[in-house]
Amino acid sequence: MSSPAYYRIALDVMGGDHGPRVTLAGAAMALGAIKDLYLLLVGDQGVIESMLAEAGIVGELYGRTKVVHAASVVSMNDKATCILREKKDSSIRAAAECVASKEAHGMVSMGHTGAAMVASMMVLGTLPDVNRPCLATVLPSLSGKPTVLLDVGANVDCKAEHIAQFALMGAVYAEEVLGTKEPKIGILSVGEEDGKGSEVTKSASQILRGQDINFAGNAEGRDIWNGRFDVVACDGFVGNVVLKTSEALAEGIIKGLKDSIMGSLTSRVGGLLVKPAMRKFYKKLDYAEYGGAPLLGVQGISIIGHGRSDARAVSAAIRVAIRGAKGDINGRIQQRMNQMAANKAEVTLQ
Amino acid sequence: MSSPAYYRIALDVMGGDHGPRVTLAGAAMALGAIKDLYLLLVGDQGVIESMLAEAGIVGELYGRTKVVHAASVVSMNDKATCILREKKDSSIRAAAECVASKEAHGMVSMGHTGAAMVASMMVLGTLPDVNRPCLATVLPSLSGKPTVLLDVGANVDCKAEHIAQFALMGAVYAEEVLGTKEPKIGILSVGEEDGKGSEVTKSASQILRGQDINFAGNAEGRDIWNGRFDVVACDGFVGNVVLKTSEALAEGIIKGLKDSIMGSLTSRVGGLLVKPAMRKFYKKLDYAEYGGAPLLGVQGISIIGHGRSDARAVSAAIRVAIRGAKGDINGRIQQRMNQMAANKAEVTLQ
Repeated sequence: MSSPAYYRIALDVMGGDHGPRVTLAGAAMALGAIKDLYLLLVGDQGVIESMLAEAGIVGELYGRTKVVHAASVVSMNDKATCILREKKDSSIRAAAECVASKEAHGMVSMGHTGAAMVASMMVLGTLPDVNRPCLATVLPSLSGKPTVLLDVGANVDCKAEHIAQFALMGAVYAEEVLGTKEPKIGILSVGEEDGKGSEVTKSASQILRGQDINFAGNAEGRDIWNGRFDVVACDGFVGNVVLKTSEALAEGIIKGLKDSIMGSLTSRVGGLLVKPAMRKFYKKLDYAEYGGAPLLGVQGISIIGHGRSDARAVSAAIRVAIRGAKGDINGRIQQRMNQMAANKAEVTLQ
Repeated sequence: MSSPAYYRIALDVMGGDHGPRVTLAGAAMALGAIKDLYLLLVGDQGVIESMLAEAGIVGELYGRTKVVHAASVVSMNDKATCILREKKDSSIRAAAECVASKEAHGMVSMGHTGAAMVASMMVLGTLPDVNRPCLATVLPSLSGKPTVLLDVGANVDCKAEHIAQFALMGAVYAEEVLGTKEPKIGILSVGEEDGKGSEVTKSASQILRGQDINFAGNAEGRDIWNGRFDVVACDGFVGNVVLKTSEALAEGIIKGLKDSIMGSLTSRVGGLLVKPAMRKFYKKLDYAEYGGAPLLGVQGISIIGHGRSDARAVSAAIRVAIRGAKGDINGRIQQRMNQMAANKAEVTLQ
């Protein structure tokens, strides 16, 4: 496939806690920064068109957009499966349809995570040879080196083979989107030693040991944050719990420190002086930089952003979708799956 | 059983990163604070006796101690199972023997966690009706209210019934040791709604729903740190990963902030002014306060402290062991297990 003139991304303009104005501001940022981006702006046509100028999507930028009308919006109170029936005409589903029809290379939504997952899986479909798509997230390590953690919630009960596939998909993502060379892969477990882990993680390790990848065995909980691994694979139950625990703990510590510093006059003065240094550090922890969570293993690119995304995070998510398309992550994932199947057949024949 | 004149605790003096001097300093603190404490100081007799005076274990305090000689020490490089064969004469095992022979109500060790677990399980034995002992930890919530998280590593592959038992044992611990009335219990899962979770967590919830306890359904990752639950039960795989992730993240944030503040002169000056406020907040996160991790479900009390424990943490662990003995947690756990079995039989008969 020769490189297309434009990479076309379907953006769910209606999703996200901050509404279409912020999503469009993010779209404008991305259009300004990425010259070969073409955006399908999916959502209520009247609303979107009324906000384009204000968002700065005019002139040349406007020329690289097209509004795709969608009559309804999935709200946070809706069930994830609503896009299959009641909300077939929602912006999330319409964005997925753009990818399914090949009008777009990928979709980006900051809306209902579950609905975006269902739309991606049901409308786009799973890649051949992938057993289960999985949700990945890129965590900023405290050392500044990102770690891809996956699955973080698409699959609650997993078999060893699923986790092994997650690891391989995560490695492709690290290579093509984050630019990590020979990403170091680990399976999340309860100790470094090979013998430690559940039955499932031990079998997953065994599968990965036979692959032509940089597999480094077990990762521990602490390794999610210290940058020792580029990719850490686990089942969606553990991944989800770890992610939510980490978010709450980091936010809690930062809030707790602020409150404590605001508690006395002396420390309030000191607080003003340390503010820039604290901000600089918090920026390291800001995973908006990495542009949301990719759903890997579906046909097309699907990036699911945090509901709280600001314009910068929306723009980052679009950039990530473009990188995924340019790096042909799905072609690479297919290759990896074929290799894995071939290696397995070889082992069986020996 | 009438209350004994003294509560007797076997302290593994040799365990812990800081060596016997610090453990003995902790012993002295505990003896000073708890008048009905009698300590069996387990370890190398020569070493211990040479350090007693320096630690301040003299006079009346000394009168409430007895040295129990143990010839060897489990080192961090040893396997957990070494106490069964090569190191039968280790201080960890000797401490467990004191409990097994009823010379002590409980044991406290800051040594090799795995070896202390094996010693407790194999030498003390499991309580009747408990399927599997589990390791609990008390996390200081950011709101200041502690949360008992269990299992944090004793059982990697768990069935629903195991997790339900962990929850009940955690509730007894919260009631008797932390003084929490009608502890609110949750099962760690991937969403608040009842339908969310793995097959195992959903069945565990179903078992607990039939019990006469304050069961509040699913807890999420964030609830480990926000104080919404008093007890959060999970399998030992998830618990271990969550605990290690949290430790690393909290330490990493605190270190990262310090480094960032030290990075410029202005913020260094500000750093001096905010230091007391930051310290005050960090103290909230300090789980040394809660005295180490109890291994629940064994015959006798077993408290496993962090290797890094300082004297204060050693003293806190001893206090916790005493509370466990005074609150007769094992009798209460037995009651709970019997109730659970009775409720189950009732459900089956209906």
